[in-house]
Amino acid sequence: MLVVMQANATQEQVRAVCRKIESLGLRAHSVEGAQRTAVGITGNRGEVNSSAFETMSGVQEVIRVSKPYKLVSREVKPENTIVRFAGSDATFGGTELGIIAGPCSVESREQAFAVAECVAREGVRFFRGGAFKPRTSPYSFQGLGKEGLLILAEVRKQFGLLIVTEAMDEFSLELVEEHADMIQVGSRNMQNFSLLKRVGQTRKPVLLKRGMSATLEEFLMAAEYVLSEGNTQVVLCERGVRTFADHTRNTLDLSVVPAAQRASHLPIIVDPSHGTGKRDKVTPLSRAAVAVGCDGLIIEVHCDPERALSDGVQSLYPEQFSELMAQVRSIAGVVGRTAPAATAQLPLSATPATVL
Amino acid sequence: MLVVMQANATQEQVRAVCRKIESLGLRAHSVEGAQRTAVGITGNRGEVNSSAFETMSGVQEVIRVSKPYKLVSREVKPENTIVRFAGSDATFGGTELGIIAGPCSVESREQAFAVAECVAREGVRFFRGGAFKPRTSPYSFQGLGKEGLLILAEVRKQFGLLIVTEAMDEFSLELVEEHADMIQVGSRNMQNFSLLKRVGQTRKPVLLKRGMSATLEEFLMAAEYVLSEGNTQVVLCERGVRTFADHTRNTLDLSVVPAAQRASHLPIIVDPSHGTGKRDKVTPLSRAAVAVGCDGLIIEVHCDPERALSDGVQSLYPEQFSELMAQVRSIAGVVGRTAPAATAQLPLSATPATVL
Amino acid sequence: MLVVMQANATQEQVRAVCRKIESLGLRAHSVEGAQRTAVGITGNRGEVNSSAFETMSGVQEVIRVSKPYKLVSREVKPENTIVRFAGSDATFGGTELGIIAGPCSVESREQAFAVAECVAREGVRFFRGGAFKPRTSPYSFQGLGKEGLLILAEVRKQFGLLIVTEAMDEFSLELVEEHADMIQVGSRNMQNFSLLKRVGQTRKPVLLKRGMSATLEEFLMAAEYVLSEGNTQVVLCERGVRTFADHTRNTLDLSVVPAAQRASHLPIIVDPSHGTGKRDKVTPLSRAAVAVGCDGLIIEVHCDPERALSDGVQSLYPEQFSELMAQVRSIAGVVGRTAPAATAQLPLSATPATVL
Amino acid sequence: MLVVMQANATQEQVRAVCRKIESLGLRAHSVEGAQRTAVGITGNRGEVNSSAFETMSGVQEVIRVSKPYKLVSREVKPENTIVRFAGSDATFGGTELGIIAGPCSVESREQAFAVAECVAREGVRFFRGGAFKPRTSPYSFQGLGKEGLLILAEVRKQFGLLIVTEAMDEFSLELVEEHADMIQVGSRNMQNFSLLKRVGQTRKPVLLKRGMSATLEEFLMAAEYVLSEGNTQVVLCERGVRTFADHTRNTLDLSVVPAAQRASHLPIIVDPSHGTGKRDKVTPLSRAAVAVGCDGLIIEVHCDPERALSDGVQSLYPEQFSELMAQVRSIAGVVGRTAPAATAQLPLSATPATVL
Repeated sequence: MLVVMQANATQEQVRAVCRKIESLGLRAHSVEGAQRTAVGITGNRGEVNSSAFETMSGVQEVIRVSKPYKLVSREVKPENTIVRFAGSDATFGGTELGIIAGPCSVESREQAFAVAECVAREGVRFFRGGAFKPRTSPYSFQGLGKEGLLILAEVRKQFGLLIVTEAMDEFSLELVEEHADMIQVGSRNMQNFSLLKRVGQTRKPVLLKRGMSATLEEFLMAAEYVLSEGNTQVVLCERGVRTFADHTRNTLDLSVVPAAQRASHLPIIVDPSHGTGKRDKVTPLSRAAVAVGCDGLIIEVHCDPERALSDGVQSLYPEQFSELMAQVRSIAGVVGRTAPAATAQLPLSATPATVL
Repeated sequence: MLVVMQANATQEQVRAVCRKIESLGLRAHSVEGAQRTAVGITGNRGEVNSSAFETMSGVQEVIRVSKPYKLVSREVKPENTIVRFAGSDATFGGTELGIIAGPCSVESREQAFAVAECVAREGVRFFRGGAFKPRTSPYSFQGLGKEGLLILAEVRKQFGLLIVTEAMDEFSLELVEEHADMIQVGSRNMQNFSLLKRVGQTRKPVLLKRGMSATLEEFLMAAEYVLSEGNTQVVLCERGVRTFADHTRNTLDLSVVPAAQRASHLPIIVDPSHGTGKRDKVTPLSRAAVAVGCDGLIIEVHCDPERALSDGVQSLYPEQFSELMAQVRSIAGVVGRTAPAATAQLPLSATPATVL
Repeated sequence: MLVVMQANATQEQVRAVCRKIESLGLRAHSVEGAQRTAVGITGNRGEVNSSAFETMSGVQEVIRVSKPYKLVSREVKPENTIVRFAGSDATFGGTELGIIAGPCSVESREQAFAVAECVAREGVRFFRGGAFKPRTSPYSFQGLGKEGLLILAEVRKQFGLLIVTEAMDEFSLELVEEHADMIQVGSRNMQNFSLLKRVGQTRKPVLLKRGMSATLEEFLMAAEYVLSEGNTQVVLCERGVRTFADHTRNTLDLSVVPAAQRASHLPIIVDPSHGTGKRDKVTPLSRAAVAVGCDGLIIEVHCDPERALSDGVQSLYPEQFSELMAQVRSIAGVVGRTAPAATAQLPLSATPATVL
Repeated sequence: MLVVMQANATQEQVRAVCRKIESLGLRAHSVEGAQRTAVGITGNRGEVNSSAFETMSGVQEVIRVSKPYKLVSREVKPENTIVRFAGSDATFGGTELGIIAGPCSVESREQAFAVAECVAREGVRFFRGGAFKPRTSPYSFQGLGKEGLLILAEVRKQFGLLIVTEAMDEFSLELVEEHADMIQVGSRNMQNFSLLKRVGQTRKPVLLKRGMSATLEEFLMAAEYVLSEGNTQVVLCERGVRTFADHTRNTLDLSVVPAAQRASHLPIIVDPSHGTGKRDKVTPLSRAAVAVGCDGLIIEVHCDPERALSDGVQSLYPEQFSELMAQVRSIAGVVGRTAPAATAQLPLSATPATVL
């Protein structure tokens, strides 16, 4: 912490600040500039309460110097974290982009299987689909709950896809932990610290979405909650932030990708579906996300978006998703990454006949 | 919903939109303007999925017309809601401003009692103090938990103050419901829909803080979650929103007070402590909040803010709080409200001797 | 400036930073903390180019310490500036609130006189009215130009009101300087530095409106441009900033009032008409602005807002303005200020008969 | 325009709205929904003053339907505009990306020539360099003025580069129009309507930068000012917007690229230097900008950024710029564009010997 004095602060005022610092058991380092004096504080463990200084006479402002995150920081762990899944070679943070695709909500077995087939044909490794849905309105579709999770488990079995789905609270977390491969914490829960701690106690990888107006520091501190409970398998996800701009539902902040990668060893992926909220923006922003250097994407796909029970307006049609994947593969090559290749043939268990 | 056609849309494109509307079982109302045609949709219950129209050829944009909130709306209940407390004549939404004051966190019995005494001397009816604290860092003080609640219960007994404290999750909610008079839902949990539903099932009044970047509509929809579960005793609280401005920690949005009062019958109070994050801004913004017409205030007070375990930088000293109350009383008079009067004498049980 | 090293920076990296600082002719002050070292820089005149340090190995970040403003700062001039007008005892920054009122645009002699009469009856000293209008659309009414200024000059003569009107460029500035008493620089021109310099060369008081997304520092730096050219008669004006919130046209940031008053000696007034963009919010926010401690208000009034050529939606009817003034007078008393008293009688020259 | 009635509005209130519409010479179209009635307004030329309706009893809100821009709209001109330059085959909006590179400010002939050489070697067609600099502080370097323009003219002659430079006001515009190939209007002047009109009267192509908090509509309306004066050669430029996020200087809004391309026929380029304000973010965001589908880039390059008189912290070193161009060429190929090829050999007149 640095206490910046006013230009006209007296020597006595500077001394009073130094005495106050020492009275808190810390060390004061006075630095005299041409215009003003600043006093550095060292010797603290954790944050110093700046309140002690801000209102002392002669003090102009108090500047915090240290970053509060530890375990998520590259200072603590310089090499990239690669998030892995039991019984699979799919990863986030490795050379291959981690692509997650699927419908906003699981609506029925038929709907989930139909989308899963498209997703699997593209070689994608992760299937998304909400069973527990945080909806702005209590009157909107809230998800199928446990029934949805059982459908997702069937999707895994049928198509060999790893399942990513959201936990909203203690109750749904227990079910998600049991049935899914990766636990999603949604934007609205990014600072639900009780949930973060509980998720940190699981041993499943976590997809942590950035809050609507979270700074990078707050985003990393949310991840720190998970890591501090012992779960180091966290993937960050940029999904658009709230600004005055009204041409998209949120403003996708792609610069947070290199910024997070500089500050932290955790992988970071991008959600252009929520990040734009408009179907025709998803593919261009997916290309941009891969080009900026992200570690993966999460994309909403639906075979009949006009009748989707949630987020239809931003869900891609299957053929649009195929086109997106084709473009992503091209861009990936340019930035030294690979993307899953489309498969001519689905696994035996996943033939359309079986599905419908 | 209104489907706005492009200026050069053909008659056939307009007809296609109308047919699509009718195929969904709704009614289409075509309105031809000088420049373009717009097609109104009626007959829907709940929201129409705009996805069906946005990508049709000739369509420029789709505009949502209805507001999604119901129970919180003045259209449904024109008269103001007055939130009441069992065994007390204190209210929110009545003529007297509802003032809540106390420390950010309960740190000890001594600390809580010392602050409570100051608060009670000012005639204030509600005492705040966090027992469960949502902190950005997992390494920061997380509150005393149940022990804190028991201290708060003592404060109630000793000083006759009604207790307002935050519930963060299912576990803490049960305890808060048992020990407190009013359940606070914090900003970070404004869209924790599981918590909102559970809070809606209690029969204690709820203090619902606006999320950091919540629109008024989202704020009211969060309240709608509580009301839709049967609990109609909700007090809204503006506590500053996140903007680019950096001279305060948040930007206090006082215009939301008349806007919420126009749209909803629920009372709304203001938190200038979190809304500014700076001690020297709390009193001016408290005056402004009362002048704008809010139904109350929530203020952080601490007898030794420099050593506070949380939020010391924005907590008022007791004498500053007395000064704030004096100013609030003057302003209240001007806007047709009253504020609690300072009491020369504390209730018998609340003498300083008892406290320490 | 402070160069913060990474936690694991080597001694050699710290020394390299110090050598670089010294190679620029500055002094380095190394401060070793428990976790990391920070290096203070002194000896600079003006800003140091942080680029020299940000990319050195072992450096985490570079923090700017000094504020760049000088002449507008309270450090340079601790006492409040009172802005005065030749041949009048009206002020901004004195005990009496400086109230400016009038139509958005001057539309005709009749319209201006009708509004001026209402304004003058309330004892208000300053009349606003745009002759040159910055409009978002080139197809909107752009103001009467010089003809409008001549009407304003008549208003001054007839009603004894001081005239405040906007200059948009060199051409209009010359006319405004000649015909008005106070030169307004609009939000969209807050960083039109050519205009600011030219305004700084006039000797008329300046009303400088905050830009739509200007930080306090940028706002004060814009004023610094005016002062640095020799014109010290600047009144700041908060008029709402741009945020995600959509219940008002802008988000009025009342906390900037005490923040500006702490940092600068210049008076600051508030514009709740543009700050909210909604007629029914103007009076509540005017009360709040006076309560927070501002030095005045600027209010749009129109006798027939439904037919106003600009901003009708936020203009008050005359009777609403009278009510606003009555409320402002009450609040002013509480915060140690006065507001102009309504006059039973207009100056002889200003009888309605003369006007129409 | 659509006037939305309250759910409980009476038939008489609806009729009153219709009568009011007709009294303004417009036509009313009442649409009765299940919950409420909405009244569409047609027959207007230009915007209807919503003020007339917002405060009528029974009215809930007034929704604007038409977009105010005309000449810039794809409705008016469906095919892309390609901006061309006399005596050159360089374009914006064609297949080849339009790349502009150069220093923030022209500081000296030596500095400009050194950068120009690097830029020219990369095959880039446009050279940027500020001669008139809008600086936040009056005490910062304000540019070399006319001397800078003469240096730029030499750069054009020597290296065959087209010159892009900013005009701040009438005075500098005349000089820029004379000496440069493309007139830049900076972010701070995006709503300097006097300047926009004057620029619209020139016959040089215009680079219009988005304002710090401009919506897409405002951005397009600024372009409309230029087009409405007869100059149709406008290139839009996204350069980051102001948000709460603090990991970059601005938040680069890449989704505005497809959004602008959908709404308008004008080309749009991206400025990742100002858009991020950090050197290490420029290349990743340049890749992303090309991937999203923009029509070009504008990049700051400096041979000695540590000693740059402005914006050194975001300027690339020449070798970084070469690397950026190599990456941009790869991405361009993937999105169906080309980028200028590096040239083994500079034009005869542009050998290093000549330069230094």
